Amino acid sequence: MLDKALIPFFQENMTFWPHLTEDEKNLLLDHSMLKNYAQSENIHSGDNDCVGVLLIQSGELRTYILSEDGRDITLYRLTEGEVCILSASCILSNITFDVHIDAEKASQVILINASIFQKICTQNIYAENFSYKSAIDRFSDVMWAMQQILFMSFDKRLTIFLLDEVSKTGSNVIQMTHEQIAKYVGSAREVVSRMLKYFEKEGYVKLSRGKIEVIDKVNLREMI
Amino acid sequence: MLDKALIPFFQENMTFWPHLTEDEKNLLLDHSMLKNYAQSENIHSGDNDCVGVLLIQSGELRTYILSEDGRDITLYRLTEGEVCILSASCILSNITFDVHIDAEKASQVILINASIFQKICTQNIYAENFSYKSAIDRFSDVMWAMQQILFMSFDKRLTIFLLDEVSKTGSNVIQMTHEQIAKYVGSAREVVSRMLKYFEKEGYVKLSRGKIEVIDKVNLREMI
Repeated sequence: MLDKALIPFFQENMTFWPHLTEDEKNLLLDHSMLKNYAQSENIHSGDNDCVGVLLIQSGELRTYILSEDGRDITLYRLTEGEVCILSASCILSNITFDVHIDAEKASQVILINASIFQKICTQNIYAENFSYKSAIDRFSDVMWAMQQILFMSFDKRLTIFLLDEVSKTGSNVIQMTHEQIAKYVGSAREVVSRMLKYFEKEGYVKLSRGKIEVIDKVNLREMI
Repeated sequence: MLDKALIPFFQENMTFWPHLTEDEKNLLLDHSMLKNYAQSENIHSGDNDCVGVLLIQSGELRTYILSEDGRDITLYRLTEGEVCILSASCILSNITFDVHIDAEKASQVILINASIFQKICTQNIYAENFSYKSAIDRFSDVMWAMQQILFMSFDKRLTIFLLDEVSKTGSNVIQMTHEQIAKYVGSAREVVSRMLKYFEKEGYVKLSRGKIEVIDKVNLREMI
Protein backbone atom coordinates (compact mmCIF):
# COMPACT_ATOMS: atom_id res chain seq x y z
CA MET A 1 0.00 0.00 0.00
CA LEU A 2 1.46 3.30 -1.05
CA ASP A 3 1.79 6.07 1.51
CA LYS A 4 -0.74 8.89 0.85
CA ALA A 5 1.97 11.53 0.67
CA LEU A 6 3.51 9.78 -2.33
CA ILE A 7 0.33 9.59 -4.40
CA PRO A 8 0.71 12.95 -6.21
CA PHE A 9 4.28 12.06 -7.29
CA PHE A 10 3.04 8.65 -8.40
CA GLN A 11 0.13 10.04 -10.43
CA GLU A 12 2.28 12.67 -12.07
CA ASN A 13 4.74 10.12 -13.42
CA MET A 14 2.30 7.33 -14.25
CA THR A 15 0.89 9.34 -17.12
CA PHE A 16 -1.83 6.78 -17.90
CA TRP A 17 -3.40 7.42 -14.47
CA PRO A 18 -6.42 9.41 -15.75
CA HIS A 19 -7.35 6.50 -18.03
CA LEU A 20 -7.58 3.95 -15.23
CA THR A 21 -10.86 2.85 -13.68
CA GLU A 22 -11.32 3.39 -9.92
CA ASP A 23 -10.71 -0.32 -9.37
CA GLU A 24 -7.49 -0.22 -11.38
CA LYS A 25 -6.29 2.85 -9.47
CA ASN A 26 -6.89 1.15 -6.14
CA LEU A 27 -5.30 -2.08 -7.28
CA LEU A 28 -2.19 -0.23 -8.42
CA LEU A 29 -1.86 1.77 -5.20
CA ASP A 30 -2.49 -1.30 -3.05
CA HIS A 31 0.39 -3.11 -4.72
CA SER A 32 2.92 -0.31 -4.78
CA MET A 33 5.36 0.32 -1.97
CA LEU A 34 8.32 2.43 -1.07
CA LYS A 35 11.63 0.62 -1.12
CA ASN A 36 15.18 1.63 -0.27
CA TYR A 37 18.27 0.31 -1.94
CA ALA A 38 21.76 0.80 -0.59
CA GLN A 39 24.53 2.11 -2.82
CA SER A 40 25.86 -0.70 -5.08
CA GLU A 41 22.97 -3.00 -4.19
CA ASN A 42 21.85 -5.22 -7.03
CA ILE A 43 18.16 -4.72 -7.83
CA HIS A 44 17.58 -6.95 -10.81
CA SER A 45 19.68 -9.51 -12.54
CA GLY A 46 18.99 -11.48 -15.62
CA ASP A 47 16.62 -14.21 -16.45
CA ASN A 48 14.08 -15.29 -13.92
CA ASP A 49 13.98 -12.04 -12.08
CA CYS A 50 10.88 -9.88 -12.34
CA VAL A 51 11.16 -7.39 -9.50
CA GLY A 52 8.48 -5.04 -10.74
CA VAL A 53 8.21 -1.58 -12.25
CA LEU A 54 10.33 1.02 -10.45
CA LEU A 55 9.57 4.72 -10.20
CA ILE A 56 12.64 6.49 -8.88
CA GLN A 57 12.02 8.99 -6.12
CA SER A 58 15.66 9.75 -5.38
CA GLY A 59 19.07 8.30 -6.18
CA GLU A 60 20.33 6.70 -9.36
CA LEU A 61 19.97 3.29 -10.97
CA ARG A 62 22.43 1.88 -13.50
CA THR A 63 21.39 -0.67 -16.12
CA TYR A 64 24.07 -2.82 -17.72
CA ILE A 65 24.72 -6.05 -19.54
CA LEU A 66 27.24 -8.64 -18.46
CA SER A 67 29.26 -11.02 -20.61
CA GLU A 68 29.97 -14.60 -19.58
CA ASP A 69 33.46 -13.62 -18.49
CA GLY A 70 32.14 -10.74 -16.39
CA ARG A 71 32.66 -7.77 -18.70
CA ASP A 72 30.15 -5.10 -17.84
CA ILE A 73 28.72 -2.51 -20.26
CA THR A 74 26.62 0.38 -18.99
CA LEU A 75 23.49 0.94 -21.07
CA TYR A 76 21.96 3.90 -19.25
CA ARG A 77 21.33 5.50 -15.87
CA LEU A 78 17.97 6.58 -14.45
CA THR A 79 17.29 9.27 -11.90
CA GLU A 80 14.41 10.98 -10.08
CA GLY A 81 11.01 10.79 -11.75
CA GLU A 82 12.13 8.19 -14.28
CA VAL A 83 10.52 4.81 -14.65
CA CYS A 84 12.44 1.58 -14.90
CA ILE A 85 10.42 -0.91 -16.90
CA LEU A 86 13.12 -3.44 -17.73
CA SER A 87 13.16 -4.56 -14.10
CA ALA A 88 9.76 -6.00 -15.01
CA SER A 89 10.64 -7.24 -18.46
CA CYS A 90 8.49 -10.32 -17.83
CA ILE A 91 5.56 -7.97 -18.43
CA LEU A 92 6.54 -7.28 -22.01
CA SER A 93 6.58 -10.52 -23.94
CA ASN A 94 8.55 -9.04 -26.81
CA ILE A 95 11.48 -8.01 -24.61
CA THR A 96 13.66 -11.07 -25.05
CA PHE A 97 16.91 -9.83 -23.53
CA ASP A 98 18.10 -9.52 -20.00
CA VAL A 99 19.79 -6.71 -18.19
CA HIS A 100 21.20 -6.11 -14.76
CA ILE A 101 20.23 -3.14 -12.61
CA ASP A 102 22.13 -1.80 -9.62
CA ALA A 103 21.52 1.13 -7.31
CA GLU A 104 24.43 3.34 -8.28
CA LYS A 105 23.70 5.63 -5.36
CA ALA A 106 21.53 5.00 -2.32
CA SER A 107 18.06 5.14 -3.87
CA GLN A 108 14.46 5.38 -2.84
CA VAL A 109 11.99 3.95 -5.33
CA ILE A 110 8.32 3.16 -5.58
CA LEU A 111 8.08 -0.50 -6.51
CA ILE A 112 4.98 -1.67 -8.35
CA ASN A 113 4.24 -5.37 -8.20
CA ALA A 114 4.98 -6.98 -11.57
CA SER A 115 1.96 -9.24 -11.90
CA ILE A 116 -0.46 -6.49 -10.90
CA PHE A 117 1.12 -4.11 -13.39
CA GLN A 118 0.89 -6.82 -16.02
CA LYS A 119 -2.78 -7.42 -15.22
CA ILE A 120 -3.51 -3.72 -15.67
CA CYS A 121 -1.52 -3.58 -18.91
CA THR A 122 -3.55 -6.48 -20.27
CA GLN A 123 -6.88 -4.86 -19.55
CA ASN A 124 -6.00 -1.21 -20.15
CA ILE A 125 -4.32 -0.20 -23.40
CA TYR A 126 -3.20 3.14 -21.95
CA ALA A 127 -1.15 1.36 -19.31
CA GLU A 128 0.24 -1.01 -21.94
CA ASN A 129 1.11 1.97 -24.09
CA PHE A 130 2.91 3.63 -21.18
CA SER A 131 5.12 0.60 -20.63
CA TYR A 132 5.99 0.41 -24.33
CA LYS A 133 6.77 4.10 -24.41
CA SER A 134 9.04 3.77 -21.37
CA ALA A 135 10.85 0.85 -23.00
CA ILE A 136 11.38 2.81 -26.20
CA ASP A 137 12.96 5.70 -24.31
CA ARG A 138 15.50 3.15 -23.13
CA PHE A 139 15.90 1.83 -26.70
CA SER A 140 17.15 5.28 -27.67
CA ASP A 141 19.54 5.31 -24.69
CA VAL A 142 20.91 1.93 -25.64
CA MET A 143 21.49 2.97 -29.25
CA TRP A 144 23.43 5.97 -28.00
CA ALA A 145 25.56 3.81 -25.72
CA MET A 146 26.14 1.33 -28.51
CA GLN A 147 27.33 3.97 -30.95
CA GLN A 148 29.64 5.38 -28.30
CA ILE A 149 31.14 2.00 -27.59
CA LEU A 150 31.41 0.80 -31.16
CA PHE A 151 32.38 3.93 -32.98
CA MET A 152 34.01 6.47 -30.75
CA SER A 153 37.74 6.17 -30.40
CA PHE A 154 38.80 5.01 -27.00
CA ASP A 155 40.76 8.13 -26.02
CA LYS A 156 37.63 10.26 -26.54
CA ARG A 157 35.45 7.88 -24.56
CA LEU A 158 37.83 7.87 -21.64
CA THR A 159 38.16 11.65 -21.74
CA ILE A 160 34.39 12.12 -21.72
CA PHE A 161 34.11 9.72 -18.81
CA LEU A 162 36.71 11.59 -16.74
CA LEU A 163 35.21 15.01 -17.44
CA ASP A 164 31.70 13.72 -16.69
CA GLU A 165 32.83 12.36 -13.35
CA VAL A 166 34.51 15.64 -12.43
CA SER A 167 31.43 17.66 -13.30
CA LYS A 168 29.09 15.22 -11.55
CA THR A 169 31.00 15.05 -8.29
CA GLY A 170 32.40 18.58 -8.36
CA SER A 171 35.80 17.21 -7.41
CA ASN A 172 38.90 16.87 -9.59
CA VAL A 173 39.79 13.65 -7.82
CA ILE A 174 38.14 10.51 -9.16
CA GLN A 175 38.22 7.73 -6.58
CA MET A 176 38.14 4.71 -8.83
CA THR A 177 40.40 1.87 -9.84
CA HIS A 178 41.33 1.34 -13.49
CA GLU A 179 39.30 -1.87 -13.33
CA GLN A 180 36.16 0.06 -12.36
CA ILE A 181 36.69 2.65 -15.07
CA ALA A 182 37.17 -0.12 -17.63
CA LYS A 183 33.70 -1.42 -16.72
CA TYR A 184 32.12 1.98 -17.21
CA VAL A 185 33.67 2.68 -20.57
CA GLY A 186 33.30 -0.87 -21.86
CA SER A 187 36.97 -1.71 -22.19
CA ALA A 188 39.70 -3.75 -20.53
CA ARG A 189 41.76 -2.67 -17.51
CA GLU A 190 45.03 -2.83 -19.45
CA VAL A 191 43.68 -0.49 -22.13
CA VAL A 192 42.47 2.01 -19.53
CA SER A 193 45.80 1.92 -17.67
CA ARG A 194 47.78 2.46 -20.85
CA MET A 195 45.66 5.43 -21.91
CA LEU A 196 45.72 6.96 -18.42
CA LYS A 197 49.51 6.69 -18.39
CA TYR A 198 49.56 8.54 -21.69
CA PHE A 199 47.26 11.22 -20.22
CA GLU A 200 49.62 11.52 -17.27
CA LYS A 201 52.63 11.94 -19.54
CA GLU A 202 50.76 14.71 -21.36
CA GLY A 203 50.12 16.41 -18.01
CA TYR A 204 46.32 16.03 -18.07
CA VAL A 205 46.01 13.81 -15.00
CA LYS A 206 48.00 12.62 -12.02
CA LEU A 207 47.71 8.97 -11.07
CA SER A 208 47.97 7.44 -7.65
CA ARG A 209 46.70 4.30 -5.96
CA GLY A 210 42.91 3.96 -6.47
CA LYS A 211 42.47 7.49 -7.75
CA ILE A 212 42.97 9.84 -10.67
CA GLU A 213 43.37 13.58 -10.28
CA VAL A 214 42.41 15.68 -13.29
CA ILE A 215 44.92 18.54 -13.36
CA ASP A 216 44.51 20.06 -16.83
CA LYS A 217 40.84 20.12 -17.80
CA VAL A 218 41.40 22.65 -20.57
CA ASN A 219 43.79 20.49 -22.56
CA LEU A 220 41.96 17.30 -21.68
CA ARG A 221 38.81 18.78 -23.16
CA GLU A 222 40.74 19.34 -26.40
CA MET A 223 40.86 15.56 -26.80
CA ILE A 224 37.14 15.34 -27.53
CA MET B 1 -4.18 3.58 -53.18
CA LEU B 2 -3.53 -0.03 -52.29
CA ASP B 3 -4.44 -2.72 -54.79
CA LYS B 4 -7.49 -4.74 -53.63
CA ALA B 5 -5.64 -8.03 -53.85
CA LEU B 6 -3.18 -6.85 -51.20
CA ILE B 7 -5.78 -5.82 -48.63
CA PRO B 8 -6.04 -9.19 -46.82
CA PHE B 9 -2.25 -9.35 -46.39
CA PHE B 10 -2.27 -5.77 -45.18
CA GLN B 11 -5.07 -6.33 -42.65
CA GLU B 12 -3.50 -9.48 -41.33
CA ASN B 13 -0.22 -7.75 -40.49
CA MET B 14 -1.59 -4.40 -39.33
CA THR B 15 -3.01 -6.03 -36.22
CA PHE B 16 -4.72 -2.83 -35.05
CA TRP B 17 -6.97 -2.92 -38.14
CA PRO B 18 -10.17 -4.02 -36.31
CA HIS B 19 -9.84 -1.02 -33.99
CA LEU B 20 -9.83 1.55 -36.77
CA THR B 21 -12.90 3.56 -37.77
CA GLU B 22 -14.11 3.25 -41.38
CA ASP B 23 -12.60 6.66 -42.11
CA GLU B 24 -9.24 5.62 -40.69
CA LYS B 25 -9.29 2.39 -42.69
CA ASN B 26 -9.94 4.26 -45.91
CA LEU B 27 -7.34 6.87 -45.14
CA LEU B 28 -4.73 4.21 -44.49
CA LEU B 29 -5.51 2.28 -47.68
CA ASP B 30 -5.60 5.45 -49.76
CA HIS B 31 -2.10 6.35 -48.65
CA SER B 32 -0.48 2.94 -48.95
CA MET B 33 1.16 1.74 -52.12
CA LEU B 34 3.20 -1.11 -53.45
CA LYS B 35 6.85 -0.30 -54.02
CA ASN B 36 9.78 -2.24 -55.43
CA TYR B 37 13.37 -1.88 -54.33
CA ALA B 38 16.29 -3.32 -56.25
CA GLN B 39 18.91 -5.39 -54.49
CA SER B 40 21.34 -3.13 -52.57
CA GLU B 41 19.12 -0.09 -53.00
CA ASN B 42 19.17 2.30 -50.07
CA ILE B 43 15.68 2.84 -48.66
CA HIS B 44 16.27 5.07 -45.68
CA SER B 45 19.26 6.90 -44.39
CA GLY B 46 19.69 8.93 -41.30
CA ASP B 47 18.35 12.20 -40.16
CA ASN B 48 15.82 13.99 -42.22
CA ASP B 49 14.50 10.96 -43.95
CA CYS B 50 11.01 9.74 -43.12
CA VAL B 51 10.09 7.33 -45.90
CA GLY B 52 7.11 5.78 -44.15
CA VAL B 53 6.14 2.51 -42.53
CA LEU B 54 7.11 -0.53 -44.60
CA LEU B 55 5.30 -3.87 -44.62
CA ILE B 56 7.50 -6.39 -46.39
CA GLN B 57 5.74 -8.55 -48.96
CA SER B 58 8.83 -10.28 -50.28
CA GLY B 59 12.60 -9.87 -50.11
CA GLU B 60 14.78 -8.76 -47.23
CA LEU B 61 15.68 -5.42 -45.65
CA ARG B 62 18.81 -4.83 -43.62
CA THR B 63 19.01 -2.16 -40.93
CA TYR B 64 22.41 -0.89 -39.87
CA ILE B 65 24.25 1.98 -38.26
CA LEU B 66 27.16 3.79 -39.80
CA SER B 67 30.11 5.45 -38.10
CA GLU B 68 31.60 8.71 -39.33
CA ASP B 69 34.44 6.83 -40.97
CA GLY B 70 32.03 4.48 -42.75
CA ARG B 71 32.08 1.43 -40.49
CA ASP B 72 28.82 -0.42 -40.84
CA ILE B 73 27.16 -2.56 -38.15
CA THR B 74 24.14 -4.72 -38.96
CA LEU B 75 21.37 -4.41 -36.37
CA TYR B 76 18.78 -6.78 -37.83
CA ARG B 77 17.16 -8.06 -41.00
CA LEU B 78 13.45 -8.10 -41.81
CA THR B 79 11.62 -10.44 -44.14
CA GLU B 80 8.10 -11.22 -45.40
CA GLY B 81 5.25 -10.13 -43.18
CA GLU B 82 7.47 -8.00 -40.94
CA VAL B 83 6.94 -4.32 -40.38
CA CYS B 84 9.70 -1.76 -40.55
CA ILE B 85 8.83 1.14 -38.29
CA LEU B 86 12.25 2.81 -38.01
CA SER B 87 11.97 3.95 -41.63
CA ALA B 88 9.31 6.26 -40.20
CA SER B 89 11.09 7.13 -36.97
CA CYS B 90 9.81 10.70 -37.31
CA ILE B 91 6.48 9.25 -36.15
CA LEU B 92 7.85 8.24 -32.77
CA SER B 93 9.10 11.27 -30.96
CA ASN B 94 11.04 9.24 -28.42
CA ILE B 95 13.14 7.47 -31.07
CA THR B 96 16.15 9.78 -31.08
CA PHE B 97 18.62 7.73 -33.10
CA ASP B 98 19.05 7.18 -36.78
CA VAL B 99 19.54 4.05 -38.76
CA HIS B 100 20.12 3.14 -42.38
CA ILE B 101 18.00 0.63 -44.25
CA ASP B 102 18.91 -1.13 -47.50
CA ALA B 103 17.10 -3.72 -49.58
CA GLU B 104 19.41 -6.67 -49.07
CA LYS B 105 17.57 -8.60 -51.77
CA ALA B 106 15.19 -7.31 -54.41
CA SER B 107 12.15 -6.50 -52.29
CA GLN B 108 8.49 -5.70 -52.70
CA VAL B 109 6.98 -3.70 -49.86
CA ILE B 110 3.78 -1.91 -49.00
CA LEU B 111 4.73 1.65 -48.15
CA ILE B 112 2.45 3.60 -45.82
CA ASN B 113 2.75 7.36 -45.94
CA ALA B 114 4.49 8.61 -42.78
CA SER B 115 2.31 11.63 -42.01
CA ILE B 116 -0.92 9.69 -42.52
CA PHE B 117 0.34 6.91 -40.26
CA GLN B 118 1.32 9.50 -37.70
CA LYS B 119 -2.11 11.13 -37.88
CA ILE B 120 -3.75 7.76 -37.23
CA CYS B 121 -1.35 7.01 -34.37
CA THR B 122 -2.23 10.32 -32.75
CA GLN B 123 -5.96 9.71 -32.86
CA ASN B 124 -6.05 5.96 -32.32
CA ILE B 125 -4.20 4.44 -29.39
CA TYR B 126 -4.31 0.95 -30.92
CA ALA B 127 -2.33 2.16 -33.91
CA GLU B 128 0.11 3.97 -31.62
CA ASN B 129 0.46 0.82 -29.58
CA PHE B 130 1.19 -1.20 -32.71
CA SER B 131 4.04 1.08 -33.70
CA TYR B 132 5.55 0.94 -30.20
CA LYS B 133 5.26 -2.82 -30.15
CA SER B 134 6.99 -3.07 -33.55
CA ALA B 135 9.79 -0.82 -32.33
CA ILE B 136 10.30 -2.92 -29.21
CA ASP B 137 10.64 -6.10 -31.28
CA ARG B 138 13.55 -4.33 -32.91
CA PHE B 139 14.92 -3.27 -29.51
CA SER B 140 15.30 -6.97 -28.69
CA ASP B 141 17.03 -7.58 -32.03
CA VAL B 142 19.44 -4.73 -31.40
CA MET B 143 20.31 -5.99 -27.92
CA TRP B 144 21.08 -9.38 -29.40
CA ALA B 145 23.32 -7.86 -32.07
CA MET B 146 25.04 -5.71 -29.47
CA GLN B 147 25.83 -8.64 -27.21
CA GLN B 148 27.16 -10.57 -30.19
CA ILE B 149 29.41 -7.73 -31.21
CA LEU B 150 30.61 -6.75 -27.78
CA PHE B 151 30.96 -10.06 -26.07
CA MET B 152 31.39 -12.93 -28.46
CA SER B 153 34.91 -13.72 -29.51
CA PHE B 154 35.57 -12.87 -33.12
CA ASP B 155 36.33 -16.40 -34.30
CA LYS B 156 32.91 -17.55 -33.10
CA ARG B 157 31.14 -14.63 -34.73
CA LEU B 158 32.80 -15.27 -38.05
CA THR B 159 32.05 -19.00 -37.83
CA ILE B 160 28.38 -18.37 -37.10
CA PHE B 161 28.22 -15.96 -40.00
CA LEU B 162 29.72 -18.48 -42.46
CA LEU B 163 27.49 -21.33 -41.30
CA ASP B 164 24.41 -19.08 -41.43
CA GLU B 165 25.18 -18.07 -44.99
CA VAL B 166 25.67 -21.69 -46.05
CA SER B 167 22.37 -22.75 -44.51
CA LYS B 168 20.51 -19.70 -45.90
CA THR B 169 21.71 -20.07 -49.47
CA GLY B 170 22.04 -23.85 -49.50
CA SER B 171 25.44 -23.51 -51.14
CA ASN B 172 28.88 -24.09 -49.62
CA VAL B 173 30.27 -21.24 -51.68
CA ILE B 174 29.87 -17.77 -50.20
CA GLN B 175 30.21 -15.10 -52.88
CA MET B 176 31.44 -12.21 -50.80
CA THR B 177 34.56 -10.14 -50.38
CA HIS B 178 36.31 -9.93 -47.01
CA GLU B 179 35.27 -6.28 -46.94
CA GLN B 180 31.59 -7.22 -47.19
CA ILE B 181 31.91 -9.89 -44.52
CA ALA B 182 33.64 -7.39 -42.22
CA LYS B 183 30.59 -5.15 -42.52
CA TYR B 184 28.23 -7.95 -41.57
CA VAL B 185 30.15 -9.10 -38.55
CA GLY B 186 31.06 -5.61 -37.37
CA SER B 187 34.81 -5.85 -37.78
CA ALA B 188 37.62 -4.65 -40.04
CA ARG B 189 38.63 -6.25 -43.34
CA GLU B 190 42.13 -7.06 -42.08
CA VAL B 191 40.75 -8.93 -39.09
CA VAL B 192 38.38 -10.96 -41.28
CA SER B 193 41.15 -11.81 -43.75
CA ARG B 194 43.48 -12.91 -40.98
CA MET B 195 40.88 -15.18 -39.39
CA LEU B 196 39.80 -16.63 -42.76
CA LYS B 197 43.43 -17.45 -43.52
CA TYR B 198 43.62 -19.26 -40.21
CA PHE B 199 40.41 -21.17 -41.08
CA GLU B 200 41.96 -22.10 -44.43
CA LYS B 201 45.10 -23.37 -42.75
CA GLU B 202 42.96 -25.52 -40.48
CA GLY B 203 41.19 -26.92 -43.55
CA TYR B 204 37.75 -25.48 -42.79
CA VAL B 205 37.48 -23.23 -45.85
CA LYS B 206 39.10 -22.65 -49.23
CA LEU B 207 39.65 -19.04 -50.26
CA SER B 208 39.64 -17.61 -53.74
CA ARG B 209 39.01 -14.21 -55.28
CA GLY B 210 35.66 -12.84 -54.09
CA LYS B 211 34.49 -16.11 -52.59
CA ILE B 212 34.89 -18.51 -49.70
CA GLU B 213 34.12 -22.20 -49.96
CA VAL B 214 33.23 -23.98 -46.74
CA ILE B 215 34.79 -27.44 -47.01
CA ASP B 216 34.66 -28.81 -43.46
CA LYS B 217 31.40 -27.83 -41.79
CA VAL B 218 31.75 -30.44 -39.07
CA ASN B 219 35.00 -29.10 -37.68
CA LEU B 220 34.02 -25.49 -38.35
CA ARG B 221 30.94 -26.03 -36.20
CA GLU B 222 33.23 -27.15 -33.38
CA MET B 223 34.50 -23.55 -33.18
CA ILE B 224 31.19 -22.32 -31.75
